Amino acid sequence: MIYADNAATTKIDERVLSEMIPFLTEQYANASQPYFFASLPKQALKEARETIAQCIGALEEEIFFTCGGTESDNWALKGFSSLYNNKNRVITTQIEHHAVLNTAAALERAGVKADYMPVSREGLALPETMAEFLNGREGKEMPCLVSVMTANNEIGTIMPIGELSRLAHERGAYFHTDGVQALGHIAIDVNELGVDMLSASAHKFNGPKGIGFLYIRKGVEIAPYADGGSQEASLRAGTENVASIVGMAAALKLNCAEIESNSVKLLKMEDIIIGKLTAEGLDFIRNGAGEHIPGNISLSFNNMEGEAILHRLDLMGICVSTGSACDSVNTQVSHVLKAIRTPEGYAKGTVRISLGKNNTPAQAERIADSLIKIVKTPRE
Amino acid sequence: MIYADNAATTKIDERVLSEMIPFLTEQYANASQPYFFASLPKQALKEARETIAQCIGALEEEIFFTCGGTESDNWALKGFSSLYNNKNRVITTQIEHHAVLNTAAALERAGVKADYMPVSREGLALPETMAEFLNGREGKEMPCLVSVMTANNEIGTIMPIGELSRLAHERGAYFHTDGVQALGHIAIDVNELGVDMLSASAHKFNGPKGIGFLYIRKGVEIAPYADGGSQEASLRAGTENVASIVGMAAALKLNCAEIESNSVKLLKMEDIIIGKLTAEGLDFIRNGAGEHIPGNISLSFNNMEGEAILHRLDLMGICVSTGSACDSVNTQVSHVLKAIRTPEGYAKGTVRISLGKNNTPAQAERIADSLIKIVKTPRE
Repeated sequence: MIYADNAATTKIDERVLSEMIPFLTEQYANASQPYFFASLPKQALKEARETIAQCIGALEEEIFFTCGGTESDNWALKGFSSLYNNKNRVITTQIEHHAVLNTAAALERAGVKADYMPVSREGLALPETMAEFLNGREGKEMPCLVSVMTANNEIGTIMPIGELSRLAHERGAYFHTDGVQALGHIAIDVNELGVDMLSASAHKFNGPKGIGFLYIRKGVEIAPYADGGSQEASLRAGTENVASIVGMAAALKLNCAEIESNSVKLLKMEDIIIGKLTAEGLDFIRNGAGEHIPGNISLSFNNMEGEAILHRLDLMGICVSTGSACDSVNTQVSHVLKAIRTPEGYAKGTVRISLGKNNTPAQAERIADSLIKIVKTPRE
Repeated sequence: MIYADNAATTKIDERVLSEMIPFLTEQYANASQPYFFASLPKQALKEARETIAQCIGALEEEIFFTCGGTESDNWALKGFSSLYNNKNRVITTQIEHHAVLNTAAALERAGVKADYMPVSREGLALPETMAEFLNGREGKEMPCLVSVMTANNEIGTIMPIGELSRLAHERGAYFHTDGVQALGHIAIDVNELGVDMLSASAHKFNGPKGIGFLYIRKGVEIAPYADGGSQEASLRAGTENVASIVGMAAALKLNCAEIESNSVKLLKMEDIIIGKLTAEGLDFIRNGAGEHIPGNISLSFNNMEGEAILHRLDLMGICVSTGSACDSVNTQVSHVLKAIRTPEGYAKGTVRISLGKNNTPAQAERIADSLIKIVKTPRE
């Protein structure tokens, strides 16, 4: 099998699992307890928080563990709006993950004013668009949170977060970025990005599922997400999932150390695939081909059905996606492809190949050859 | 080491971990994806849901996975109140876990009317008290959710949930129970209990940390907790944590099958401890000694400090708790002991011994002997 759906989820790195195992077996104490048996889990939690903070240039006390990217996004947007009794604005983009888009929509139903910025054909939220939304729209006097993803999950485009966050701050707005698809794949420094909050999910960078974090800059206020015990500075209650937190930190550290070498490898594999498809003269568009997450290749084939391509690749033992995994029950053209204006004849024939550090050049060749075969011999 | 803090967390059963491992290693697909490689995780999710449903007499579609008991409690109370824009009531007890109490307090700040019922000296929420709260208080015309824990985490008392839920339903109220401390330890059938919602957490019944569920009776409306993808019937978005869900189901099934044999074993160990302490003539009260979770022994020693006892037991290699783990930073007399009117001279000298299926009678003897030694020889 060739797994080329690493934007949906990744395989846990063996080195990561081996760091988790002690906390799934003998070191099972509740990390909040005061006895000696809890000291190792407690220490592991502290070290995990430090490691993660170091990977993104943050302080230890700015890292808050959650159960994943969706929770982090929900918390950022709802926690901010809560502070103002929903008498606030949220400005986001038309191509966010549904964890942001559907949260913004839920907040709208609760009274929040939400605006969805269009993006360029390359999938970029442009500073000039943002300036217009910040100044020229209704509600500009309200407390405002801007939420723009670091990189898009369907087409991989990397947003100009640094520029956007500076602009937001100039106008007194706060800035959140959904970093789920980017962290562990490109270098991230929260100070360079200038963000107030950043969401992350471990299973996107070869860590376990069911664990993530929200970076919250010191001094930035946000309402608690889960009320209960005093874990996570009383902002996010619940017994700490030590094993998964340790796994997340180990995975992030490993992936961050390998970002450059992995990027080189992944870009070479991209070249193999695009090169072969181009050489065959296939009629396709590559979506979001500019600065992007290495290995993320969104291809739209003219006059094809994405689902049919996916199914035929599946029969050949190759896993890819049509859009995002979270949207797999929805077979329409995705909101992202609509927003970047992929022509309809192509948009329907879209597949996302997302290569990861475990893929090989030989696999890239096989993916390209299989695609060529499928596109050249439509089913009767 | 003797671990006697099973009410705080439990060790994962080896049989449980071995069912989890495939999904932490080779079977890593995102369960929401449509290709063949996702079929085993998808099937495992379905089977886990069925298993859990069977263990509590529910339907498969009534089980919604969360990341733990705190999330489940937050969802139940906030999700209900959300439906009415916080123009509703919540009636709960003074001895709930902080996941319920602090959520109710947060809802109060958002406009919800919350009432906290007193309990009997045995730690029971009495039907007559509830009837008075349902009828005789301000706000009785408002949509109402009653939330009473199945069993208390500090003193183990089992509440008369069946009777309370019938009463609530007669007055048109909905009924939630925090089953976190009870599930896997006493037989639970949601239809016998007559509850509309039930919260659960896997790490309390020898499953992994960071996973739980909320049972929501078919037909009972509740607002989504996490917006995003379409997982969990679009009520709780986020990539499914397959390994932990599989672990939770395996743990619940194992523990439920062993409830009777474990209870017999645990009650015998309780007798050993109480028998020895009584025979020595120690001056103590056992809190919540009536119908209770087997193995949960809350003891209040006259003129002692609970923390000091805990520390000295710790030095002897025995782990117990003073109150609940979630409250370990708080060294005052717990809200539970206050509510059951444990006399102050005793309340301060409280430790909770919570035995689990891995404890042995020899360990119970050693716990008792150690306690006797500590109480009889106060530090100078």
